[in-house]
Amino acid sequence: MKFSFELIKKDSSARLGRATTPHGSFTTPVFMPVGTKGSVKGITPHELKEMGVEIILSNTYHLYLRPGHKLVKELGGLHGFMNWQGPILTDSGGFQVFSLCKLRKITEEGVQFSSHLDGTRYALTPESAIEIQEALGADIIMPLDECTPYPAGREYTVESMNLTHRWARRCKDAKTANGQALFGIVQGGMYEDLRKESARALVDMDFDGYSIGGLSVGEEKGLMKDMVAATVAHLPQDKPRYLMGVGTPEDLVYAVEMGVDMFDCVMPTRNARNGTLFTRFGKLVIKNAQYEKDPQPIDGECGCYTCRNFSRAYLRHLFMAGEMLAPRLNTIHNLYYYTSLMRQMRQAIGDGTFDEFKKQFHGQRQEAALLGD
Amino acid sequence: MKFSFELIKKDSSARLGRATTPHGSFTTPVFMPVGTKGSVKGITPHELKEMGVEIILSNTYHLYLRPGHKLVKELGGLHGFMNWQGPILTDSGGFQVFSLCKLRKITEEGVQFSSHLDGTRYALTPESAIEIQEALGADIIMPLDECTPYPAGREYTVESMNLTHRWARRCKDAKTANGQALFGIVQGGMYEDLRKESARALVDMDFDGYSIGGLSVGEEKGLMKDMVAATVAHLPQDKPRYLMGVGTPEDLVYAVEMGVDMFDCVMPTRNARNGTLFTRFGKLVIKNAQYEKDPQPIDGECGCYTCRNFSRAYLRHLFMAGEMLAPRLNTIHNLYYYTSLMRQMRQAIGDGTFDEFKKQFHGQRQEAALLGD
Repeated sequence: MKFSFELIKKDSSARLGRATTPHGSFTTPVFMPVGTKGSVKGITPHELKEMGVEIILSNTYHLYLRPGHKLVKELGGLHGFMNWQGPILTDSGGFQVFSLCKLRKITEEGVQFSSHLDGTRYALTPESAIEIQEALGADIIMPLDECTPYPAGREYTVESMNLTHRWARRCKDAKTANGQALFGIVQGGMYEDLRKESARALVDMDFDGYSIGGLSVGEEKGLMKDMVAATVAHLPQDKPRYLMGVGTPEDLVYAVEMGVDMFDCVMPTRNARNGTLFTRFGKLVIKNAQYEKDPQPIDGECGCYTCRNFSRAYLRHLFMAGEMLAPRLNTIHNLYYYTSLMRQMRQAIGDGTFDEFKKQFHGQRQEAALLGD
Repeated sequence: MKFSFELIKKDSSARLGRATTPHGSFTTPVFMPVGTKGSVKGITPHELKEMGVEIILSNTYHLYLRPGHKLVKELGGLHGFMNWQGPILTDSGGFQVFSLCKLRKITEEGVQFSSHLDGTRYALTPESAIEIQEALGADIIMPLDECTPYPAGREYTVESMNLTHRWARRCKDAKTANGQALFGIVQGGMYEDLRKESARALVDMDFDGYSIGGLSVGEEKGLMKDMVAATVAHLPQDKPRYLMGVGTPEDLVYAVEMGVDMFDCVMPTRNARNGTLFTRFGKLVIKNAQYEKDPQPIDGECGCYTCRNFSRAYLRHLFMAGEMLAPRLNTIHNLYYYTSLMRQMRQAIGDGTFDEFKKQFHGQRQEAALLGD
């Protein structure tokens, strides 16, 4: 089965859609939990399914280094290896090379780098990034790109963007015919006109969807919003848009409002492991002394396994005692929160009430802030 | 509801029984997974239930220090706090004081010690050990005892045993009337006559059950067996016998054969975290290179969640990559193995075929050893 995307309904710029992949469909806007090394940390595929997760992301860089894409392919591809039967998206590995690796060298050909694990030299080219991702077998794959650093001057940004475009073309050419969808990644740094140029260049190449890269890299929220707007304006309505590595619940709400369809971020999972829990009213830091004897669940209206079964006091105890159950129960809650937030947004778009949803979303947070909660 | 124990059937010395507690019943012989700090590491109460666990053990020492027994009581006792609605057994804290704490001082009154967490001075007396365990609210509780060190001379062992007996009496006197069962702990080191003396002294005090303490402390297997035999011979048929902190699958089989009913040990859970998995054929060390590309489950005939869903290759990858899912999936397998082993033994005793069970149990291991598996 080939990848397809259907735009079901719009509410102003916000979009309700459905993507179909060889491993089933998912509805958008959607949040993809990150399973870096072929596992969403501490969580089984069945739990992901139970909490309403429809698609997950895994990192090519990490799987390439360990256990290796050939091994994964031999064991049934990523779906068989980790026993997740739903859609999977893999990134190209480029972002990790730029953020994790020392001694990296970018040439026209590709990027050379030292593994962050043991210093072994590796190379990644547009062609090998595709080869690796075809071996992993994800439903949606990404071309190798250079995530333009922030801040970057205009000259560097232009060069970097053009390299990303040439690499995108090579990835498209390298891709062998199969059911995997290949997205284009829009770069262009913090320059609105370059974002437009990048979007148009990639749209001309005709990808299955478009990723917005190079954001949430340290810039101010306002600047990020401007760049999302400057990109989205030049993307076609009939293809999915994916804002890479974003973000907070607030980010998801405004980006959905601007017409973004897909998101991934380590925030819900990483914060969970650090004891920071997301709720309707904002963040809750479970180690705080105020929760020591608190018999309430994290959120009395949350339907997640953690909230249905355990008190803040118990979760605080597990966290303070360094118990393995703490990150697990916290992750279940945070992913359920993110999944539910997306579901509520899909519902609101479908009902044509996204504006009301947004007011309620921000209202609950402001109210809690006023109460000092 | 008061604690009761019913001896259902004997097959030679092996016993099939049922214990009833305020939080439901469990069948014996039984293995109790250890939830040191109010959580079986990484595993939810629902998973324990699913894998057939009927009773768990939690450690008074750890909960006394953190979060404190008063907090646990306020939050519904250990059952409510950790949301495990089945039977719970707590130890007295004595063993941890002797194994974890420095600067400990034993007097007739009790034991003073420094917390292994921050050095804070605490004291535990027979009376306070009972008070703490009554606050925690376990279904079966233990008296404070001195776990006689190994090796120990006869004179020290006698003194230590007599102190344990005096403390046992004080614990019985301190216990307020409620549904909790209090067991007596037999000591006597590695001296058969002292084991007999200790068993008889405690039986004279009439406890709800009898624990065999001070074993698996470094002595040889043969010596341990002798001490179990020397103890069990002097315990009544109508009360449960609990061999504390034991042991390997092999230990469980011979101790059940000798008439022991209850066991606890960190072995299945701790070994799981270290990547050592129990199977019918012996231990499997998941990090071994031979499993790198192995598509088989840990044990093709095992019905646990891990074996039903994941390959050795994936489990090895998770372990090598330090993924949180590794200890969790490994723990599920090991606890399922232990739980199933006990179930098989109960079945065999009920059928009067314990001898055959034993032959098959050892046969599979020997065969595997011969094959070099």
